[in-house]
Amino acid sequence: MAEYRRDPVVDRWVIIAPDRAGRPCEFVELESVERAGVCPFCAGNEHLTTREIDAVREPGTAPGGPGWRTRAIGNKYPFLDALPMLGEPRPSGRNPSSLFASLPAVGPHEVLVEAPFHATRASQLSLEQTTDVLRLYRSRLRALRAEGRWRYVQIFRNVGEAAGASIEHLHSQLAALDVVPEAIAAELRGAGEYRTRHGRCVFCDLIAAELAAEVRLCEATPEFIVACPYASRFSYETAIWPRRHEAGFDALDDEELTKLAGVLRRTLGRIERLAARTSYNVLLHTAPFDAADDAYHWHLEILPRTAKAAGFEWGTGVFINAVAPEAAATRLRAIGTNE
Amino acid sequence: MAEYRRDPVVDRWVIIAPDRAGRPCEFVELESVERAGVCPFCAGNEHLTTREIDAVREPGTAPGGPGWRTRAIGNKYPFLDALPMLGEPRPSGRNPSSLFASLPAVGPHEVLVEAPFHATRASQLSLEQTTDVLRLYRSRLRALRAEGRWRYVQIFRNVGEAAGASIEHLHSQLAALDVVPEAIAAELRGAGEYRTRHGRCVFCDLIAAELAAEVRLCEATPEFIVACPYASRFSYETAIWPRRHEAGFDALDDEELTKLAGVLRRTLGRIERLAARTSYNVLLHTAPFDAADDAYHWHLEILPRTAKAAGFEWGTGVFINAVAPEAAATRLRAIGTNE
Repeated sequence: MAEYRRDPVVDRWVIIAPDRAGRPCEFVELESVERAGVCPFCAGNEHLTTREIDAVREPGTAPGGPGWRTRAIGNKYPFLDALPMLGEPRPSGRNPSSLFASLPAVGPHEVLVEAPFHATRASQLSLEQTTDVLRLYRSRLRALRAEGRWRYVQIFRNVGEAAGASIEHLHSQLAALDVVPEAIAAELRGAGEYRTRHGRCVFCDLIAAELAAEVRLCEATPEFIVACPYASRFSYETAIWPRRHEAGFDALDDEELTKLAGVLRRTLGRIERLAARTSYNVLLHTAPFDAADDAYHWHLEILPRTAKAAGFEWGTGVFINAVAPEAAATRLRAIGTNE
Repeated sequence: MAEYRRDPVVDRWVIIAPDRAGRPCEFVELESVERAGVCPFCAGNEHLTTREIDAVREPGTAPGGPGWRTRAIGNKYPFLDALPMLGEPRPSGRNPSSLFASLPAVGPHEVLVEAPFHATRASQLSLEQTTDVLRLYRSRLRALRAEGRWRYVQIFRNVGEAAGASIEHLHSQLAALDVVPEAIAAELRGAGEYRTRHGRCVFCDLIAAELAAEVRLCEATPEFIVACPYASRFSYETAIWPRRHEAGFDALDDEELTKLAGVLRRTLGRIERLAARTSYNVLLHTAPFDAADDAYHWHLEILPRTAKAAGFEWGTGVFINAVAPEAAATRLRAIGTNE
């Protein structure tokens, strides 16, 4: 049984997921899978996956078969337990006020397959395909928001073994949570304090400051800016911020989605050309569904995995980054977008 | 030039250390070093290291030559810049109130070599040798506290390549910081809030609760308890808590050091017998030198590196742990101490 546990001292949740230990070491398996030509995520192999939850599909095709362009399925090795039936009350925590606070960890843990063909790098996706991926993100976020029982949905993409990917075929993942994660809570707290002090959104001010400073910019369009954050934890860390203040990603309209797809595709193209097989994570940070106000400002974070976090980083939370963000931005701009 | 930078949104510092990029990939180098039999940390090779800062030595031996049992030297590839002369004022931050707060990152980054012979695992150290290591920790902490200009000193040990070790010969590292790191600040905040609410130390209460619950205990002595923390982020994560409330590690007396050495040696012996080459980090959490009160309670954290942090963990701060702490403690107890 999976379980959220809150640290007795700091405000940090973990998920204890013992069933997850049975997960095969998929990168070892992968080679034989690929040799046998039976990637479970390729079109035609839908019978190898769990039930289709959602998809962007060609008109007239039926769920569960081919004809999809992106599709959401259940993760075969979820770190959250299966959902109780919709409409059932949310499970309540055991001993929420004691040192040992706990909550059953139930909810959807989904895989969002990003292409019907065997794509392994984001730069293999067309603009249209990338838009379809973002459309699926939005569709799942809207559906889970409508369920009215989740506090936060994390969408993330692991590309490459060093980034934690277990299947090579390009995919994102999604987990709907009963807790607001520490990283989001810290951003909400920071944005709230800044608003109290200055009366403005800290992300909006940051975007203006990055546009003025220029040195950390990779790209600026009328809708988005792409920059290496001032206090990047990872070398070549990159963020995509929307200029328009909006707390939740799922408020994007179709035109904004297409514009974002262009920016994302160019940015990941640059990251993927940094080295032969750059591993990286993409993280969508969006407001918790139960956020009290619109102080949050959604954004994407791209974290290349060039260095390992070691004892100092784990002990302190202070990351050592050997590439200044200004130098990273210069290099990323020089790489160009191949468009 | 190394630089602290504070994130514009969340209260998190990073260190931008461009000179660090030149650090050789030492695990590749290591094999040839070992083949050539010239480990720079072995006794007799003192000329291959930087100047000796401190040491536990045989009587009558001189700094810089053999006769040491543990010794502190400067890291050849420091992530902090060289110190200004003692007595010079601490550098002040640039734009501390703006979005882009920065501070020169200067200070000692030291290597604490743990044995004169080529030890690669903590279980190869005798009780006496382990005590000498802790004596050097205390000596360096006391000396740096006496300098009166550092806010926090992080002592950490990386064992094994997956834990970030770059030299195989057993060693710890130390960095003296001008900032209180996020992880320590969060613990201080949690301990302060708990004290306000309950009038007691959260760590003292936690120790009592773990002794009562028993299920997560690995060992309990009259002075220390060893347990797998309730909300462990890593499988087989283990903490050593002193029963006596004390904010700073360097307040330990000689007898306590020896008792701690016994507990630490048994605990790391168990961790090292979990698998053939377990990689792990050891982290000393002690109160910042400028802590306003004694609400903190020093402790050691041992983080085995069995799983990789992936996108979900980086995006949320919520770690997935596939081994319940109760199961981890059962297994660690069963492994025994080999004493």
